Parts: sequence; C-alpha cells; structure tokens
Amino acid sequence: MIPKTMQALVKTSAAPGMEMREMPVPSIGPADVLVAVETASVCGTDLHIYHWDEWAQARIKPPYIPGHEFCGTVAAVGELVTDVKVGDFVSAEMHVACGRCKQCRSGQAHVCQFVKILGVDADGAFADYVKIPASNVWKLGDEIPRDFGSLFDPFGNAVHTVLSGEIAGQTVAVTGCGPIGLFAIAVAKACGAADIFAIEPNETRRELARKMGAKTLLDPASGDVERQVFEATGGTGVDVLLEMSGHPAAIAQGFRMLRMGGRASLLGIPSRAVEMDLANGVIFKGATVHGINGRKMYETWFQAEALLRGGMDLSPVITHRLPLAEFDAAMKLLESGEASKILLTVKRQR
Amino acid sequence: MIPKTMQALVKTSAAPGMEMREMPVPSIGPADVLVAVETASVCGTDLHIYHWDEWAQARIKPPYIPGHEFCGTVAAVGELVTDVKVGDFVSAEMHVACGRCKQCRSGQAHVCQFVKILGVDADGAFADYVKIPASNVWKLGDEIPRDFGSLFDPFGNAVHTVLSGEIAGQTVAVTGCGPIGLFAIAVAKACGAADIFAIEPNETRRELARKMGAKTLLDPASGDVERQVFEATGGTGVDVLLEMSGHPAAIAQGFRMLRMGGRASLLGIPSRAVEMDLANGVIFKGATVHGINGRKMYETWFQAEALLRGGMDLSPVITHRLPLAEFDAAMKLLESGEASKILLTVKRQR
Amino acid sequence: MIPKTMQALVKTSAAPGMEMREMPVPSIGPADVLVAVETASVCGTDLHIYHWDEWAQARIKPPYIPGHEFCGTVAAVGELVTDVKVGDFVSAEMHVACGRCKQCRSGQAHVCQFVKILGVDADGAFADYVKIPASNVWKLGDEIPRDFGSLFDPFGNAVHTVLSGEIAGQTVAVTGCGPIGLFAIAVAKACGAADIFAIEPNETRRELARKMGAKTLLDPASGDVERQVFEATGGTGVDVLLEMSGHPAAIAQGFRMLRMGGRASLLGIPSRAVEMDLANGVIFKGATVHGINGRKMYETWFQAEALLRGGMDLSPVITHRLPLAEFDAAMKLLESGEASKILLTVKRQR
Amino acid sequence: MIPKTMQALVKTSAAPGMEMREMPVPSIGPADVLVAVETASVCGTDLHIYHWDEWAQARIKPPYIPGHEFCGTVAAVGELVTDVKVGDFVSAEMHVACGRCKQCRSGQAHVCQFVKILGVDADGAFADYVKIPASNVWKLGDEIPRDFGSLFDPFGNAVHTVLSGEIAGQTVAVTGCGPIGLFAIAVAKACGAADIFAIEPNETRRELARKMGAKTLLDPASGDVERQVFEATGGTGVDVLLEMSGHPAAIAQGFRMLRMGGRASLLGIPSRAVEMDLANGVIFKGATVHGINGRKMYETWFQAEALLRGGMDLSPVITHRLPLAEFDAAMKLLESGEASKILLTVKRQR
Repeated sequence: MIPKTMQALVKTSAAPGMEMREMPVPSIGPADVLVAVETASVCGTDLHIYHWDEWAQARIKPPYIPGHEFCGTVAAVGELVTDVKVGDFVSAEMHVACGRCKQCRSGQAHVCQFVKILGVDADGAFADYVKIPASNVWKLGDEIPRDFGSLFDPFGNAVHTVLSGEIAGQTVAVTGCGPIGLFAIAVAKACGAADIFAIEPNETRRELARKMGAKTLLDPASGDVERQVFEATGGTGVDVLLEMSGHPAAIAQGFRMLRMGGRASLLGIPSRAVEMDLANGVIFKGATVHGINGRKMYETWFQAEALLRGGMDLSPVITHRLPLAEFDAAMKLLESGEASKILLTVKRQR
Repeated sequence: MIPKTMQALVKTSAAPGMEMREMPVPSIGPADVLVAVETASVCGTDLHIYHWDEWAQARIKPPYIPGHEFCGTVAAVGELVTDVKVGDFVSAEMHVACGRCKQCRSGQAHVCQFVKILGVDADGAFADYVKIPASNVWKLGDEIPRDFGSLFDPFGNAVHTVLSGEIAGQTVAVTGCGPIGLFAIAVAKACGAADIFAIEPNETRRELARKMGAKTLLDPASGDVERQVFEATGGTGVDVLLEMSGHPAAIAQGFRMLRMGGRASLLGIPSRAVEMDLANGVIFKGATVHGINGRKMYETWFQAEALLRGGMDLSPVITHRLPLAEFDAAMKLLESGEASKILLTVKRQR
Repeated sequence: MIPKTMQALVKTSAAPGMEMREMPVPSIGPADVLVAVETASVCGTDLHIYHWDEWAQARIKPPYIPGHEFCGTVAAVGELVTDVKVGDFVSAEMHVACGRCKQCRSGQAHVCQFVKILGVDADGAFADYVKIPASNVWKLGDEIPRDFGSLFDPFGNAVHTVLSGEIAGQTVAVTGCGPIGLFAIAVAKACGAADIFAIEPNETRRELARKMGAKTLLDPASGDVERQVFEATGGTGVDVLLEMSGHPAAIAQGFRMLRMGGRASLLGIPSRAVEMDLANGVIFKGATVHGINGRKMYETWFQAEALLRGGMDLSPVITHRLPLAEFDAAMKLLESGEASKILLTVKRQR
Repeated sequence: MIPKTMQALVKTSAAPGMEMREMPVPSIGPADVLVAVETASVCGTDLHIYHWDEWAQARIKPPYIPGHEFCGTVAAVGELVTDVKVGDFVSAEMHVACGRCKQCRSGQAHVCQFVKILGVDADGAFADYVKIPASNVWKLGDEIPRDFGSLFDPFGNAVHTVLSGEIAGQTVAVTGCGPIGLFAIAVAKACGAADIFAIEPNETRRELARKMGAKTLLDPASGDVERQVFEATGGTGVDVLLEMSGHPAAIAQGFRMLRMGGRASLLGIPSRAVEMDLANGVIFKGATVHGINGRKMYETWFQAEALLRGGMDLSPVITHRLPLAEFDAAMKLLESGEASKILLTVKRQR
C-alpha cells in the first residue's frame, strides 16, 4: 500500500541548506509512474542548490524536492502506461523533453528548447517516492549490479561524451577526474581507446583514475603535463580531449594538447566566460568541438546498459554510502574533495 | 622560351611595404611544375604581411615573394611529372603538406603538422613565374570562367566551411561578409540552404551579400539582430553559424543565435584570445563546432570545381582589377573597405 | 459542422477494384486530429492495392479506406491536442511509429519495428475526412504552394534518399524517373549536385527529368548508358546512385556505374529477390549502400519544407488532376505510363 | 651484405602449384625499401593462386612471387627515403595506390581505381627479400609482439570492417569465423561491443571464436540460429552484421538477423552473383551496408597498432607455423579446415 505521506529532503526556501520533511506522496497522471526510491546519488548540481549559489538563485524555485540520480521499484502506474509495471526495478531520464520543438522532432531531444529537469525544475528523487513520465523510465535488468542503478545519469553523461566521436584506437586526455571523468575513463578504455591520460590535481582522484583504466596520471600543478603528453604521442598531441572540469586553465591546456584535426568533447561547465585561444586551439587546428548536455534519448541509455551488462565496474567511484537523512554529511564530504560518488540510501527494497 | 629573370613583388625586408624587383625565375625539381602566372588575387593575409604586423613579424622571413591565390599556364614540368603538361591552365593548393605526419596519413592533410604555405613560408605567386609541386597543381577545365581561376583558394575556404556539416534545408547565419563570407553565402544557397542571414556592418558588403543569395541582411550595429533572427526562425535560432569575421562580438553573437544542437563552423581568425560563454554557447547548447583551416585535399577542390562548373557566379565579389605593379593601390583599396576581392593581372596569356 | 457520414473510396473486399461508398466520419481520440481532405494523390502502392496483387493480398485487410498522400484542413482536434488547431492547413506523416521499440527510442522511428501505415494498415485519406494522431500532423505554411501539400509523402521519400549521404558537388545517377525519381532530381540539383544522369526507358519521363534538372538523359535500351556515364565522369563513374526503379537490370547497371567508394541509396522496391554482383558492385568497390524507407521523423519534413519554401517547383510532375470519384480513370492513366503524379480532388476548401 | 640471389616461392606458370626457386634479389628505386622477410602468413587468396582457380586465371600473370602478409627487417633504403632506416622492423600495406585518381585524392586510397597489389599483381613477400615503396612501409614498435607483425594485413581487414560504423554498445553477428572473422570478434569485443554472436559451421573455429570473445556460438546447420538471435536481442535482431564468409546462405541469413536500421559490413567475397532479398533485407529495413576492401590508408593501421599496443591477443588464431619451403603442407592444412592462420617462417632475424 502506498502511504499518503513520505519523508523527503526539501529545499524549503531561497537560502542555503535542505531539510528532511514530511511531504505528500505525489499523485500520478495517466501517463506517469510512481517509483519507490531505493538509492539516490549526489551530483555537483545538488551542492550548488544546497549552497544556494548564483546559478541556483537564478534557476531554482523553492520549495521543492531535489535529486535527479536514482533507482527504485515501481509502486504504481497510470492507466495509459503499458511498458512499465509495478515491481519493475528502474532508473529514469530526468530531462523531460517537450516533444514538440525542432530539436525534439529531429532526434535531438537531449537539447530540447523547453526541457524540464526533475530534481531541478520540479520535484525529484530525494524522497521515498518520485513521479516520472512513463516514457522516461528505464528498466534495469538483473545483469546490472543493483548498486549501479542510480548512476545511469552521470554514467550516461560520460558515455555520451566519450561516444560523441570516434574512440577506438584513439589517444585520449581526460581533464578533471570527478565521477563523470572517472566514468569516462572506464568507457573510453572499454571502447578501445589507446593510451588514456588523466589530468587531475587531486591525488585521490588520480588514484581512482588509475583504477578506472587511465595509463598515465598527470598533475597539472607539475607544470610538465603538456611536454609529457606530446612526448608520449610522438609529438602529435592527443586525438581526443574529454573536458570534465569546467576549469578555464584545464580547458586551455586541453586544447593545447589536442592534435591538429582532433576532437574535443566538453562536458564540464565553466562558472563564467572563458578566455579561449580560438585561433590556435580550434581554427588553425581544424578541431571538432562537441558541447555535451545530458544523455541522448535514448541511444546513450542503450549504450550505457550494454557497457554495464558487459561487466564494466563502476564501484571504485562509489566512495561513500549514507542514509538520505545524513545529506549534510554528504555535502561536507563532497566539498572536502575526499568523496567521489556518494550513494544516499532511501529504502532498501529487498 | 622561359627567361632567366622575371618581375616579382618582393617582401624585401622586415619592415612595412613590398617592392617590384627583378628576380631569377625559379628552377624546378623533378616533381615540380613551373607556372607562368596570369592572375593573382589579394588576400587579407597579404595585407598583414604588407603592414608587417605582429603576426607577420613572427611568421615571415624576408626576403621572399608573397602571393598564394593565382592561376596561370604551365611553362615547364619536372621529369617525374606525368599528370600535368606544358600549356595546361591551372591553379594550385598552396598548402604543401609533409605527407608523413599522422594527419597526412589519415586523410587530414589540410591540418598537416608541418605544413609549408607557398606565398607565406616560401616564394609565392606575385611574380611572372611560380614553382609548385606537381601534386598540388589543379587543372582548370574550359567550363570554368578564366577569371575565377585565382579564386580557388578563398572560394575553397568557403566551400570547406559550408560543407563541413549538413547544409541542405538548414537556416544559416553568416557573420562577416568579406570575400570568403560572400562566397560562403553563394555556396550555402547553391547547396540547398533555407534562409540565409548575412550579418555585416559594412553596407557595401551587405549589398554584395544580397547579390550572392542572402535573404536577410542585418547590420550588427542596429542592436536588433538577435531578435530578428529568432523571430524569423520561430524562436529556434539558426541551424548553422558560419563565422567569417574573427571579431569577438560577432563570434559571441553568432553563438547566441545558434539553435540548441546547431553547428558552428569557424573560419575567421581572431587576432587575440576571445571571451567565450562556453557554458551557454556550446555546452548546454549541445553545439558542434568546426575549426576550419585551408581546404580539404582534395575533396574541397572537387566540390569547388563542381559548383563552378554548375554555373555559380563569383563575379560580384571581384570588385577591382589592377596590374601587379599597382599593389600599393590595391592595399589601400582593401584597407578602405571599398574593395572585396582584387585581381592583380600579371600577364594575360591569351 | 462535421457531418455523421462521408464519401470515401473503399477497398471493399479481397478482390481487384475500389468503390465509392458512404461511410461514417471517423471519431477521434484525445490525441487525434480530424482533417477534412482537400487533395489526395495516388501512389504506386495504391495501384498494387487496386489490382489486389500478391503483396496486397498478404498485407491488406479489407474493408478499409486507402490513400496516404494528402493535404487538408483540420476540422476537429482531441482534448489533449495543443499544437494543431481547427482551420490549420496540414499534411501528415502516415507512418505511425510505436514509440517504444529500439528504433523509435534511438532516432530511427522511420524504421519502427511495429509501424502502422494509415492508408495501408488502417483507414487513410481517400475520403472526405481522415483521422490522424496529432503528433503526425505537419502544418503547411502559406509559402508552400497549396498544390504541393499532398506531395510531402513522396517528395519526402526523395528528400530522404538524396540527403541520406553527401550530395553537394557530387555526380549523380538516378535510375527510374517515376514521381519520386523526378523529385529526387530536383532535390539533388537544389542541393548542389554536379551532373545528374537520368536513366529511364520512358521518353515522357525522360523529358520530365530534363525539366526537373537532369543534365544527361539516358535510355537504358540504347545499350550505351554505361559507356556514356564513364566518359562523362572521366572514367571514374558516378559518386552517387539513387535507385528509384526497383528493376533488377537497373539496379545491376546502377552499381556498375557507381565509382569506387561511392554511395548508393536504394528506394525502388524489387518485386522479388535480385541477383547482385556483391563482390564487384559493393565489396571490392568499397561502396556504401543505404536502404531508404519512408521519411526520417521529422528531419526529412523540415528539409522538405525548407526546400519548398525556397521555391522548388514540383509542378511538372503533376500531370493530371481528377475528382476522387474518378479513381478508375486515374488507375488507368498510371498503368499507361502516361501519367506521373495524379492529384485527386476531394473537396476544394477555399 | 645483401646477396645477389635469394630463395623464393614462385608461381612459375599458369597451372596449379608453386615452387621454391632461386631468384635475383629485387633492386630498389630511390623511393623504395628492401625488406628481409622474417615471417609471411598465408591468406585464402594464396590458396586461390595455388589452385589456379577461375579468379586466379583472370588476374595472375606468372611467373611471379606471391605473398602479401609479412614482417621483416629493413635491409636497404632508396636515396629519397627518410622515414625508414636499415634495421627497422616493419610490415607494409601491400595495396599500392596510384595517388592520382579521384579516390586517392579524396581520402579513399583503399579503393584506388588503379591499385596494384604486391603479392598479387607484382612480386610479393614469399621470399627472402621483398621490395616495397617507402610510403607503404609500417614500422612496428617493440610493444607489438613480433609474431603479430605479419598479421597486420588480415587484422587490418578486421579492424576496417568492425570500425566502418558504430560498434560500442552494439550487438553484433559475425558470419564466418576464418582468421579475419576471428580477428573481428576480438576487435568488436575490445571496442565495447555488447553480445557477439559467432555463426560458423566448423566446430574448431567456433571454439576459437569463443576464445576471441564471442558470447554465443551458433552452428548454421542447427536450423535455429535466427530464432536464438532474435530471442537474445528481445525480438529486435542485431545492431551490426559483420559478414566474413562470402557464402550466399550466410549473407541471406545475416540480413534476416539484422535489426531495422542496422549496419552490415561485408568483407567476405562471394565467388559468384548472390540472390539478395533487397526489399526486406535492405530497403524496408533502412539498413546501411558497407563494402569493405583492404585497409584505410592509414587510419586502419593507426587503429590496428593502437589495439595491439593495448594488449589484444591474436595468438589463438595462429594455429600453425612452418618453414616457407613447406608451403605444400600449409596449403593442405588450410584446405582441411584444421588450420586458421598459418605463419611461414622465412628467416628468424634475432
């Protein structure tokens, strides 16, 4: 039986912090699904919302429930829903596309002009229950380790980034080894990348990068990164840059290390405008640059699922597990740089 | 009979200016071709060299003969040359690729790591004769108006830019209507582009843009450009940005007008680092950005030839014709903004 | 006011022929649109259904209303429909995709595994009214000649075929100049194709091919087609084959004329298995072959609309106009080879 | 010191068989390299030449030296050669492209119109020494197991086939598990393919397919292959077909198993025209078909090298090693179906 109320982590007001509150369980429409959340994981975005930074102030409308990385068990389905049934173990694409703009009508729903993100623009998954349009639900087969269920969102970001161009046999630099950078290393490795250079100032993260498959670990503070990359690539530079940090210095360095005619896929979000040497970094270089947003619907999901079914191990990235109620501690762990991906347990369902 | 000496326009020293001088006719190697120049055209690059600006000071090693846009008649061929013969009317790819770097060995010779540009790094075509490796020569059939022969270099830039992504049925913004921008408008139109928006502050150039096929002419000074583009595209923005100006403000505006998931091809060279709103202009937008350098060897040449054989008219862009010896006047015309493409006549050969 | 009954052309039974009948006006669901048909056009598929050939016997379940090429005015919309309103002048994609198979979930709805085609698998547009899911409706702007409204289906086939690969600057052979072949010629021409070779035994159709933009008209009966194509392409063969006939001999000839590394897009449906010289025609040749089905949803529609807004003239292909009730005459015209595209007028609406 | 004469395996006359003979060591031109062969491997093509079948009779001009898969040590270089030096351990691309046809000038040298294959159209590597144009030589680094040096030709075929389209996260059927099919399985696996179905009648080869990374081994004789593939792919069919057999029945079955919108890359050469159900197998299916010839020059070589440097193990495919002089035994082993790849040792060089 679905209860009337639930525990949820709520962004209650236009100020720092979040609070556990009792909230009504969402009522679903005819094309929706209600999911009992088992695990939710914490994204850097959640930290912005928690701290109520400039971006959050411009985008977020409290009160609402954050959380956009999760998995759980279907508790109820609307009357028009045929593909999902009560008891299915699922995750979901939380970008809800409009379905009607030019992008949505041309196979680019991941850059819908009118997208609404659950957990950002509407109630999300830091709660006992979350409401999702049935079309956005992704069923998780038994072959996929249950722990990885909440990671499809950031793992999908990595898959989208890596596979936005050719990867087999390519040399790759990954700038920034947060969770998505780490996932990207594993994906690149599993998809036939040649040498992978992980560039990251935090030593713990570099060590994780090694575990995920990076061949060469480089600390940008060493001042020697570019020379090493050029030396290791016979003076050519890397075929592929996967920019995961959003840091201006890393972006600039990444483009310098990219070979003539190379591919740069940018996922890390700079917090302000960036000085770019467009002439040398992009134009003379004949580079191809891909801006990466979300996950392709649903090509990325098929690929992500296939890679996990193939045995890819994401567990080194999961550094902490806490009950949802201990989100304050989770936020502190994230800020400290000690944590990579933190799973918040909502309700173990079996 | 080929004479021993010739008239040439020479960059004689590390200072502003160029001078007509008597110079030895180049002697050719076994795989080279000697071309009697009929027409050479003036590029913005030549203006930089003439004025001896910062870029020129770093790159150019006087004394040497500039000029990299030309056509003429083959006067002599080396002993290993089989595909080109004396009397052929030709132009040439002046980017001489090394043939051995990773790019050259992977179909990307246009971004060769060790490229040498004739007319920039070695003697070029502002002279009675020019020496070219036979592999770089492009024969011009009778179907191509003789006047257009010297324009393959900049026209090829435009073809490369426009055809670096999908164009048929696409809405297009061209920022900057110098000669390459104007050629790009004609190419986009001929390749099925939907509405073309030409964005250019100079009224004369806007008028040329109209002649080349732009539907909407916009003056960035009007302050209203973005609103008009969004209105004309149903609020979506343009599918394709062709950036031909290198101006930071135009680049920024171009990316703002680009639709989510759109394509930006950048050819205009900014003279210094550019502030880019990477987050909104590229990453969230899921844009694809192509840096454009030179011409694909030789896909672009085949395409350029096919378009000209199909009857494309480049003549509105040719605003002036002068004898080579009047290069000072040509440089003044270019600076004034009055001229678009200037042809320098070296020796009419029939 | 929408009446209770309407006139419709009905395939009444599992036998040759069709009949005008009084039928109930369709009742629409919450996500449907009811369109008052103005014009419907006749497709070769309708001829198969009329004659009740083998294919028709296997696929069609009478009684039902055929017709899948049409335009008309929206007469009513379901309660959930927001993007289309009464009075809109529209056409529609008649392939109704399931939305849930792997193809539908990966940007390939045009090859949905469970597609249902209105006018083939369910009631279509040879009637006063037709019911369409709102998501499949395509609004037609005033810039598009009203007469071309019913042609989006076959014109879209042509657009999909031509634009399934590179076309600008390419030499093209079109084998078979029925309506879709003729449209393809116009599309290729408008998208920058170099020489277009139209290969077609029927002289009237060859003449139409010339009007649509083909440069060279070739009669396969002349026995000289291949020699002429190779001669005109410098011994190379064509860059692109657009196969529109479905005839084994034309397919074989087409692949022989295709250059090494060329692209073949196949739309014509052979009525039985075809002997293919796969070794020489495809494998050694390093060819790329695209099977073409329907129209990409909805990339093709955007492209088709843009090309028509750009002024493409389809009128030479419209050879006849008849009232819907005279479908028997239309079928005879089609069989005679005299007609290209026949428009059936249902009800002029303004 | 390079001797004047050498031992070579010679196709002496237009009849079955080959013979060891004393032959002059080739003299090299200014742009050539002379390689002392260490290992040569046997290809199915060599078997055709040995047996003097129809294809061989039409193509081969005896007397000449066959052999196109090899590795060895550079013994001498021509005066213009700068990138290769005496002592380098190398393999080579034996397709010598003309460099001047449209394909060669457009990044498609692997389908050169005027290609000459060393070991087929001119003397090859079944000898102590072989002459190669320097541009075709590929240096082998120490990271690559010396035994794999002679396998770049067939391994490159596999790499070219697998990477001619998307592979990461794709389900794949490989029809035919000769050496190239087996290599293709390993490449697909290393490049992130999801389930790989190996379809092969020979049990020994199926077992090798398992070792190379196939998940599901299927015997076409079992009559149940298609049902199993559809069941394992949720009724969808495979995303990718890699056709390595050239057998009409395998080709037909492969296309039936391919999903709507899937990709088929064809490398196996049918010995005669093949009956194809183009309508259902390609056109309605919206399939993309790639004919695969040789190796892309030199993208494929970079990819092949990267994969081997990454540790890919080809050794299960090497089933036999014999001295060159025992080629008769090698041919018998190949015919028996017992052998997969046979290495012929010419001269161990260290």
